[in-house]
Amino acid sequence: MTKRIMPRTGVAIDLAEGDILTVIDPEGGQVSDLLAVSRSDPREILSNGRTFDYEESIKLKTGSQLWSNRSNPMLTIIEDTVGTHDFLLTPCSAATFKHFYPDKPVHRGCFGNLAEALAPYGVKPDDIPTAFNVFMNVPVRPDGILSVEPPLSKAGDLIRFRSEMDLVVGLTACSAYASNGSTFKPIDYRIERGEG
Amino acid sequence: MTKRIMPRTGVAIDLAEGDILTVIDPEGGQVSDLLAVSRSDPREILSNGRTFDYEESIKLKTGSQLWSNRSNPMLTIIEDTVGTHDFLLTPCSAATFKHFYPDKPVHRGCFGNLAEALAPYGVKPDDIPTAFNVFMNVPVRPDGILSVEPPLSKAGDLIRFRSEMDLVVGLTACSAYASNGSTFKPIDYRIERGEG
Repeated sequence: MTKRIMPRTGVAIDLAEGDILTVIDPEGGQVSDLLAVSRSDPREILSNGRTFDYEESIKLKTGSQLWSNRSNPMLTIIEDTVGTHDFLLTPCSAATFKHFYPDKPVHRGCFGNLAEALAPYGVKPDDIPTAFNVFMNVPVRPDGILSVEPPLSKAGDLIRFRSEMDLVVGLTACSAYASNGSTFKPIDYRIERGEG
Repeated sequence: MTKRIMPRTGVAIDLAEGDILTVIDPEGGQVSDLLAVSRSDPREILSNGRTFDYEESIKLKTGSQLWSNRSNPMLTIIEDTVGTHDFLLTPCSAATFKHFYPDKPVHRGCFGNLAEALAPYGVKPDDIPTAFNVFMNVPVRPDGILSVEPPLSKAGDLIRFRSEMDLVVGLTACSAYASNGSTFKPIDYRIERGEG
């Protein structure tokens, strides 16, 4: 069954090892921040730096694994119809809204949505690191300068992950203007339970 | 007074707002992992993702600021004679030694050295994020693939930071083979106290 995350909100999802999580962009051009913590100890959390080190790349693709701060694989990308995601930037927050959009209303952003969704599992706001920003399009120039561009995802594009341990995953429909080409749209997801 | 960090070790340094920290490569070709936490609350810690977002670049240079997970500037780079540093990769650890150097003796690495140096200040190992890896040379290709190359620093090269808040800084002489061209050398540092 496909479930919907409404614009500018977030959810927490329980995944057992072997489950498959599919994240779908139902309308196209929308970002979803994904954060994973170990269900048995939420202090084990997704780490972009460990992932870049073990995958020897800052661009993840089918076959890549997302690693934890304790050097364990958390998720494997098993299908990806877009191929462009970001793992450099922290989730948008009230502070980033004030910084980047001083003339627009402040929103708690993906940071606030992830913090609320994961609080019941013992994740504190200060613990929230860089999420894996599904469909987010952040080109990096050779001189290191980056920019946030509209996502390349079209309606129906998706990415599928296999869970490599029992996880709680926070997942959002992103709230920032630049990430989504200034529109806010939903994100869909689906869970297939493993053989386990 | 210049102090020395012996090869494959680390220290903790108290910095008041306005103090200047100079990190020096005395022999050339050596990496130093730098991690900063707020002295008033060590849960406020250096964040590569917030820094990339606010600096709009993954390559930091003179004038760049290093930001915390709470969106506050922690350090400003005020001088830099090398211009090549890394902020993508987490500190080398026992796990990364086993992964990348399976035939070599395991070392606790910069991760273990930072964890020990910062433990008295309330920093837990799980809290240790990507450090700012001074003099570390990690080119990223257009396809995202990265490699760890020998540092470009020559003997006497340095980088200087101004502290933007009261900080505890963990600083190492890096322990990993690839980071330093397979040699382990010391790192020197110097503190100039601000007017404050």
